[in-house]
Amino acid sequence: MIDTPTGREDFLFPVEPNARKVAREIYESISSLPIISSHGHCDARWFAEDASFNDPTSLFVTPDHYLLRMLHSHGVSLKAMGVGVPTGDPDFNARAAWRIFAEHFYLFRGTPSGLWVERVFESIFGIGEALSATSADSIFDAIGGALQRPEFRPRALFERFNIEFLATTESATDELRHHKMLAEDSWTGTVVTTYRPDNVTDPARMDFQQNIDTFGELTGQDAGTWAGYLESHRIRRQEFIDVGATATDHGHPTASTADLSTKDAESLFQRVMSGKQSSEDNELFRAQMLTEMARMSLDDGLVMQIHPGPYRDHSPEMLATYGRDIGFDIPRRIEYVHALKPLLDKFGNDPRLSLILFTLDESTYGRELAPLAGAYPAVKLGPAWWFYDSPAGMMRYREQVTETAGFYNTVGFNDDTRAFMSIPVRHDVARRVDCSYLAKLVLEHRLHLDDAYTVARDLAYSLAKSAYRTDG
Amino acid sequence: MIDTPTGREDFLFPVEPNARKVAREIYESISSLPIISSHGHCDARWFAEDASFNDPTSLFVTPDHYLLRMLHSHGVSLKAMGVGVPTGDPDFNARAAWRIFAEHFYLFRGTPSGLWVERVFESIFGIGEALSATSADSIFDAIGGALQRPEFRPRALFERFNIEFLATTESATDELRHHKMLAEDSWTGTVVTTYRPDNVTDPARMDFQQNIDTFGELTGQDAGTWAGYLESHRIRRQEFIDVGATATDHGHPTASTADLSTKDAESLFQRVMSGKQSSEDNELFRAQMLTEMARMSLDDGLVMQIHPGPYRDHSPEMLATYGRDIGFDIPRRIEYVHALKPLLDKFGNDPRLSLILFTLDESTYGRELAPLAGAYPAVKLGPAWWFYDSPAGMMRYREQVTETAGFYNTVGFNDDTRAFMSIPVRHDVARRVDCSYLAKLVLEHRLHLDDAYTVARDLAYSLAKSAYRTDG
Amino acid sequence: MIDTPTGREDFLFPVEPNARKVAREIYESISSLPIISSHGHCDARWFAEDASFNDPTSLFVTPDHYLLRMLHSHGVSLKAMGVGVPTGDPDFNARAAWRIFAEHFYLFRGTPSGLWVERVFESIFGIGEALSATSADSIFDAIGGALQRPEFRPRALFERFNIEFLATTESATDELRHHKMLAEDSWTGTVVTTYRPDNVTDPARMDFQQNIDTFGELTGQDAGTWAGYLESHRIRRQEFIDVGATATDHGHPTASTADLSTKDAESLFQRVMSGKQSSEDNELFRAQMLTEMARMSLDDGLVMQIHPGPYRDHSPEMLATYGRDIGFDIPRRIEYVHALKPLLDKFGNDPRLSLILFTLDESTYGRELAPLAGAYPAVKLGPAWWFYDSPAGMMRYREQVTETAGFYNTVGFNDDTRAFMSIPVRHDVARRVDCSYLAKLVLEHRLHLDDAYTVARDLAYSLAKSAYRTDG
Repeated sequence: MIDTPTGREDFLFPVEPNARKVAREIYESISSLPIISSHGHCDARWFAEDASFNDPTSLFVTPDHYLLRMLHSHGVSLKAMGVGVPTGDPDFNARAAWRIFAEHFYLFRGTPSGLWVERVFESIFGIGEALSATSADSIFDAIGGALQRPEFRPRALFERFNIEFLATTESATDELRHHKMLAEDSWTGTVVTTYRPDNVTDPARMDFQQNIDTFGELTGQDAGTWAGYLESHRIRRQEFIDVGATATDHGHPTASTADLSTKDAESLFQRVMSGKQSSEDNELFRAQMLTEMARMSLDDGLVMQIHPGPYRDHSPEMLATYGRDIGFDIPRRIEYVHALKPLLDKFGNDPRLSLILFTLDESTYGRELAPLAGAYPAVKLGPAWWFYDSPAGMMRYREQVTETAGFYNTVGFNDDTRAFMSIPVRHDVARRVDCSYLAKLVLEHRLHLDDAYTVARDLAYSLAKSAYRTDG
Repeated sequence: MIDTPTGREDFLFPVEPNARKVAREIYESISSLPIISSHGHCDARWFAEDASFNDPTSLFVTPDHYLLRMLHSHGVSLKAMGVGVPTGDPDFNARAAWRIFAEHFYLFRGTPSGLWVERVFESIFGIGEALSATSADSIFDAIGGALQRPEFRPRALFERFNIEFLATTESATDELRHHKMLAEDSWTGTVVTTYRPDNVTDPARMDFQQNIDTFGELTGQDAGTWAGYLESHRIRRQEFIDVGATATDHGHPTASTADLSTKDAESLFQRVMSGKQSSEDNELFRAQMLTEMARMSLDDGLVMQIHPGPYRDHSPEMLATYGRDIGFDIPRRIEYVHALKPLLDKFGNDPRLSLILFTLDESTYGRELAPLAGAYPAVKLGPAWWFYDSPAGMMRYREQVTETAGFYNTVGFNDDTRAFMSIPVRHDVARRVDCSYLAKLVLEHRLHLDDAYTVARDLAYSLAKSAYRTDG
Repeated sequence: MIDTPTGREDFLFPVEPNARKVAREIYESISSLPIISSHGHCDARWFAEDASFNDPTSLFVTPDHYLLRMLHSHGVSLKAMGVGVPTGDPDFNARAAWRIFAEHFYLFRGTPSGLWVERVFESIFGIGEALSATSADSIFDAIGGALQRPEFRPRALFERFNIEFLATTESATDELRHHKMLAEDSWTGTVVTTYRPDNVTDPARMDFQQNIDTFGELTGQDAGTWAGYLESHRIRRQEFIDVGATATDHGHPTASTADLSTKDAESLFQRVMSGKQSSEDNELFRAQMLTEMARMSLDDGLVMQIHPGPYRDHSPEMLATYGRDIGFDIPRRIEYVHALKPLLDKFGNDPRLSLILFTLDESTYGRELAPLAGAYPAVKLGPAWWFYDSPAGMMRYREQVTETAGFYNTVGFNDDTRAFMSIPVRHDVARRVDCSYLAKLVLEHRLHLDDAYTVARDLAYSLAKSAYRTDG
């Protein structure tokens, strides 16, 4: 899939030689499988337009909230990294920013971000040298030069990366311009969208009213009525399906669900539309909308994903200065057992529903999520997410989830990234960690070796295909 | 204790060869110790009547909530597995059910249920073949045939399993018929009961009033008064002790305890008996009853166990269709530090009380439970429970508990099972994991090797005997 | 730094030979670095007066809450260990107490306390024999004899231990007598104080009013007014700085912070001074005082430490009988994300502030603390604390913190101890665990070997110096 530099064939495998050997053998059987990138945040424009990427800074640093947060924590100005700077601003010097990044690269020792950057440099650009103040310029030039070559354009990389399926994420009010272009293009790469309606289901957002207006305009419905609002969702879901969507995604502060009567839901909708609702109303509306989305999924077959938990934009100063998605979303404790009950009471035993749950609270893996996924036909567990999309995070996930939920209530790996270059590396990390986990089970006589080969293939490929219904 | 098939001598031992060797040597010194099954759910009838078990399906699948939940999560009908089907129903085909189970056995890869089933087949029935669609019939026949032979009858297996002490669990209104039979029988196996009064201490149960009536009838008291109700407990506890009980068990939604004045307790009792109480009253009554049970334990010496936490019967649809104990009990976050304070303020420093705590929230191991057990003379920690009765679960327990509570505030292993056949395997798993943990401590110079041998014996045998006062 | 007995060179290193070798090599490069003891509870009098320590019991057992709690949990009377017994009481027999301790030493198998005691005996007193009933007397005599020799007096040990910087902790109303003596003494050892104002910031304390009076007397301010109270803090902070303090410490029940207007703060202060305040007022006052302390830190440069979480003195009976700090402080669940927001909204992005956070709730490492420390310039993470100052506790800390916060948002090791003799051992344990963690990263190709050497040095020495500003 991606090149592995000499001496790093055993990247992430267990240190113990027998375990390392078994892990490597299992890995070799699945390392070349195509990538199913079932949940992520790439820009569909890249593939629709297939233009070259710009300089290394704007490709790697400026849009990466993992990097930005760490740099900021040690006093680096995000503006100096290009955040909030208009493209082409002559006062912004991409090379100078890159040098600052390189000088601070020691901060990423021991982090997945450090690994991703190094492995991308090595495997995609053939750069063996470590990033530092000394090497900053030569690496900047090497990458910058490569990016101008045709084989580093988005579609060429997509094929080089052996991506079979890639889902992006668009909001309920997105016009899907680039996805429509892709649908009409002769390029054979499969890039689809995902329906993410948070901007019309969360009345706490400043732009909620305005989004509802746009929503109605896009669908030709009176989205200011409960019936018209629901119908708008149905229409847009179908439009997303028409350009390939197989899933929805819901990023809520909590996992709360509700099951109100039509009358109560209607009256709640009017309250949140009035702008005079309470914060409890907002929470209840979001909760009710998860159940509504589940109901629609039973009709149109879209897989449903819930990504709850973070306190978004924890620092108001940073939000005001730089906007969203710059690394100030902080996880919190989260509760699933009571929160999901209304939805599960309604649809949890219906095998037609596929409800994939994520968490940023690892204490829920074994306590709440694996027990729920191991009982309800509708429930599956998404992979280790965000801060836990890391070697140790993935290992804790397997160790805490597998004994209760097994492997077959999980859905393979999600890269969840807007860093396109890192997609093969991230999937490779997941495959290596999973094979390491399986090798341990085999050598402790907890799993037969032939079953381990099957499970490895399922975790790397088959489960993502089936859970996300990528074969349509 | 049980046979270990060739090539699996190192089942569950660490992969690293030195650690494996030390673990195996320690294990060999304790592997044949008798089993103290101090907490479980076997049916006393089996040993009282000593009849042959029926077919493999009704022995292994139909009563096992671990298996049922996983099968249901992948769309297998529990009715097809025999749940809710009357014994001898001609429409139920045990062999057909077994085939479905076998086809879905891959779901249990990596789970303790998968290990238990395989190890039971191997070690008790000598079946080496893996369970699958292909082998389903031959394994069904092999087990079915064996079960008809005298050496597979309950008492013979009890002796073959080298069980020294086995406690079952009966409710406060159970007539103890089979335990009384056993007490008068000449068979020398020790099978005792455990006093579990939840059905008369939890006013939230639908059958609470009716149970109180039965309770009074059984004891000849007016159980509708606070004094008569308490006296009924004293009488029944003594009846349980008379057929061997050494412990009580309390399965509550939370760990709440209370210490009301007699007057307030009396008035609360009247409220919960009126049927017009609030849910807070129910919680307070359960809380008060834990303290009352502790008080009685000081008098009659019964060890006290608290098993708090699960949301019982999470799916109302499943409860309505199939009843309780089919795998829909879901753990939740639980709090001990404030909850236990009223009881501990009263009796926590009294070394005559032995209060054994369990959890389904692993985040409490190091944070709350080990600190409490490492300070209060009355408090001890029960072993990893339920979903955590598993290789990784047990290892996390030792790693998170030992440094703060030591080994000697824990109580050895509980199998907590109604799956009689799996008892030796479960104890064997616990012994192997404990020896693996000890081997690591020894090789890291954190524990002397001779002390490791002593501790291994204590964990496998002595601590259970002393904590559960099995020598009377 | 300290002697390592033959055969224990590999104490705490990974069992796998390659990992052990790499861990040992990294460790050898940092094992002799001086000790920065940046947070602890030694008695400044020891170094000011440099008198001999008394008998082994009063040195090791009586003041050690880790030992006391475990002994009490198995029925040993704390009075028999000398707790609450006046120094020189003829009825107290230190040797008899030591024998009881020795008989119960098996309770500490697998605990850090057991390791610390053994390693101190070995490395400082050259005692190779294990402590037991048999060896109790000879060990008592060997230590007792050594303590009378000049090379076992506090200053000699301080130098032998290679301590470069040692911070004690004094309350806001402490007269700093011994620190002033030290400041005027020609001895070159650096022993400084830390400003811990809990006794004048927590209105829930019984002695709060009286402490405020003393506070005002010490500073010549009217501490009964909000302005005079704040000025008293400023004056005392400067007095602490004058005898070397570089930090403050705050031991609160929760991590709550607040940012009230001056008018609201003033009115809250009057309420808590009236003695008629609510418990919410107490919490709000503590919360506001953290923000006030942060504001003062921006002016005077003191590093700020928050140690939140434990339920202090959980057993009222034990508190009444023996007082505080005898092992009955029990951790609880704790929340940081909402609690710290008011303070962080105000000062979190100011790199002049250094706010070091601790926890007793390990579930917050990855979920809340590492994300906060990896984003806010002001926030850093203190090391594994209290019950988690242990081999497994430290390893979990690195595994759960590093991937999100990196190494450079942490602050090295704190021994946090009043057990002076154990300081080198505790630092040695931390260094060994960190090198073990680094060796694993190196061998899994997650960290370059040369970077591992640098990181090891930073964790053992440099980070503590910079985070605690020990160079003034």
